Amino acid sequence: MVYELYYWPGIQGRGEFVRLALEEGGAKYIDIALKPENRGGGVPAMNKFLEGPRVPHPPFAPPFLKVGKQLIGQTSNILLYLGGPLKLAPRDEAGKLWVHQLQLTVADLVVEAHDTHHPIAAGLYYKDQKAAAKRRAEDFREHRIPKFFNYFEKVLTRNRTAGPWLVGRRVTYADLSLAQVVAGIRYAFPKASTKALRKHPRLMKLHDAVFERPRIKRYAESGRRLAFNNDDLFRNYPELDG
Amino acid sequence: MVYELYYWPGIQGRGEFVRLALEEGGAKYIDIALKPENRGGGVPAMNKFLEGPRVPHPPFAPPFLKVGKQLIGQTSNILLYLGGPLKLAPRDEAGKLWVHQLQLTVADLVVEAHDTHHPIAAGLYYKDQKAAAKRRAEDFREHRIPKFFNYFEKVLTRNRTAGPWLVGRRVTYADLSLAQVVAGIRYAFPKASTKALRKHPRLMKLHDAVFERPRIKRYAESGRRLAFNNDDLFRNYPELDG
Repeated sequence: MVYELYYWPGIQGRGEFVRLALEEGGAKYIDIALKPENRGGGVPAMNKFLEGPRVPHPPFAPPFLKVGKQLIGQTSNILLYLGGPLKLAPRDEAGKLWVHQLQLTVADLVVEAHDTHHPIAAGLYYKDQKAAAKRRAEDFREHRIPKFFNYFEKVLTRNRTAGPWLVGRRVTYADLSLAQVVAGIRYAFPKASTKALRKHPRLMKLHDAVFERPRIKRYAESGRRLAFNNDDLFRNYPELDG
Repeated sequence: MVYELYYWPGIQGRGEFVRLALEEGGAKYIDIALKPENRGGGVPAMNKFLEGPRVPHPPFAPPFLKVGKQLIGQTSNILLYLGGPLKLAPRDEAGKLWVHQLQLTVADLVVEAHDTHHPIAAGLYYKDQKAAAKRRAEDFREHRIPKFFNYFEKVLTRNRTAGPWLVGRRVTYADLSLAQVVAGIRYAFPKASTKALRKHPRLMKLHDAVFERPRIKRYAESGRRLAFNNDDLFRNYPELDG
């Protein structure tokens, strides 16, 4: 099975949560929009499914994954699917739901991190919503980062099995996503995150453990993992870091 | 099986998406926080699970559902679970994922509708973020409502089976949630939504079909379904309706 991933070129964005799972799971996949247009890639290949008049299950937005003829959209839903074949989730129903619940909480944090620089409209430039961004970012640093980090630290503490993971003894897609959001917040808010992570050693350890996994490390060092940048979900605007 | 639902009293909020599924599925459930405190209800009963030091799988926030000893949090995850026993989702894996994908897209719309009145911080009063709210609401009316409504209308059109539903011939939890968000947006933005729904007749029909389901109707007429109000997710501030 060769998976086809469809996501915007040039940014990690929400596609990266899927890529980390594919990489850790050792999956074969093609990142379609990164292929040249004249070889069936690029944004046009993606738009075929977003805008095509006969796609039976059209996604609302990227990322989406093509598995044979099946299209699967929504980041958390793609991960819910991949958890099985890539062995990145428990096999029992209750365990699957618990991992998915944690994933959806990570997804909520991603939206809030994004909205610090775009509190008014995703369709407007940052410079046109800078005053609101400063206020939203302050609340994010003071209240939301602590609330989410406390929560994940608590979940890590309550997992009584050995090892750095959220659920049981094995890494799950929720661990990968949580490490990615921590990495993103460290990029965007270096000062606020350093302070917050000092109080949350288990969360910091999870982050490190993910990026030290051999397959994730190989991926990060391959040059295929894009660097964070200021067109992305997580943006480094020093004025938003207090 | 008697389900226990935990959610804030006084509002429909995210709990309502779960309630509609429980009602349509004919489930027995107790809305714990609506019971008096001296009979084991109220917010303290909820906080036991949010703050208790020995809860193995603590939820981040309400709503959460207790099924025997299992706690399930995150609205979309609760619905993913309930889809099986309440027969509100297809039985095949691909169908389940497609319904969940639509649910997660509804959930995105819910966040955006909420953030029209709270674009800066959930912890601040509306009056302290009114200027930003006006700008965000304008974008929501002009760009986001049309984008989401177009999308759902498209999905409804692509479902080639007879009937008003998003997926196949049977009502799913995603239909119930979509009808609820349409109802909420009609309450919050009566002018903008009237205009938008005129262009999306299938979406309007889905809304009506859900609220005409016998069990949903009985629930709405029982007095147990709270009215929309301005402490809730969807709020009617005329200045945000253009």
